[in-house]
Amino acid sequence: MLAVAVEEARTGLAEGGIPIGAALFDRDGALLGRGHNRRVQDGDASTHAETAAFRAAGRRRSYRDTIMVTTLSPCWYCSGLVRQFGIGRVVVGEARTFHGGHDWLAEHGVEITLLDDRECAEMMTAFIAERPELWYEDIGQD
Amino acid sequence: MLAVAVEEARTGLAEGGIPIGAALFDRDGALLGRGHNRRVQDGDASTHAETAAFRAAGRRRSYRDTIMVTTLSPCWYCSGLVRQFGIGRVVVGEARTFHGGHDWLAEHGVEITLLDDRECAEMMTAFIAERPELWYEDIGQD
Repeated sequence: MLAVAVEEARTGLAEGGIPIGAALFDRDGALLGRGHNRRVQDGDASTHAETAAFRAAGRRRSYRDTIMVTTLSPCWYCSGLVRQFGIGRVVVGEARTFHGGHDWLAEHGVEITLLDDRECAEMMTAFIAERPELWYEDIGQD
Repeated sequence: MLAVAVEEARTGLAEGGIPIGAALFDRDGALLGRGHNRRVQDGDASTHAETAAFRAAGRRRSYRDTIMVTTLSPCWYCSGLVRQFGIGRVVVGEARTFHGGHDWLAEHGVEITLLDDRECAEMMTAFIAERPELWYEDIGQD
C-alpha cells in the first residue's frame, strides 16, 4: 500500500511541489482515494497529502475500517483528521524527518504502523535540504 | 468578526449544507479568508468551515498574528489545523451543540474566546434536529 503513497509523493515532486503522498484504503486493501500535497501546485495551504486522499475518497458514513497510508508522519492537522473521522489505522512511511501526531493517535486508539522506509526518508531529506523555506511554510514554522 | 462567520453559516444552510461558517482575520481585523462547510455542496468531506477559510486566505508564511473565528467549537481536524499552523487566537461562536478541541488548543497556548452566541447555537440545534444523519456524518460518528 505504501507504493501508492510513494508514487503520489513522486508525482508531487515532479510537479515542483512538496513530496508527501497518501492513500486511503478499505480493510481489504481496495483503494478509496489517493493524493499529494498541493501547496505549490494550487497555492492551496489546506491540501496536505492525507487531506487530499481523504477528499478523493468522497463522502463516507464511517472510516473505522479504513487505513490511511502516508509517506510521512502526519502533522497535527492531518492527525486531527484521522482522530475526528475515526480512521482505524495509519501506516506511516517514516517519522525521521518529521515527527507529527502519530503517538497521540496511538494513545487515542488508532493502530499505527511505522515503517521507517528508506526511500520516503531520503526523498524528504533531500527536499528539506533543497527547499527549507517551502518545507517550514508547509508545517507552519516561522 | 463573528458576523462574517455567521453569514457564511447561513449561506451554507441556504445551499442545503451544514450551517457552520468561519473566517480568518489578521491582528488588525482585516479579513484574510472566509468559508463554510461544503460536504453537501461539493461532496467534499474535507472542507469544514475552518479549512475553507484557511484555504481562502492563501499561502502565508506565519499565522501567529491571525485570528480564526468560527460559529462552532472546532473539531479535532480543525483544531489540528490551528495547532499545526500556529494560529494565535480562535473565537468560538458556541460550544453547546458540539464540544471540539478548543480546550486542547488553550492548553497548547492558543488564546480562546468562547462567546456562547445564541444565534449560532440555535442554528446548529435546529440543524442537528432536522438532519442528524448529516451532522453525525460530518463529525465522523457512526
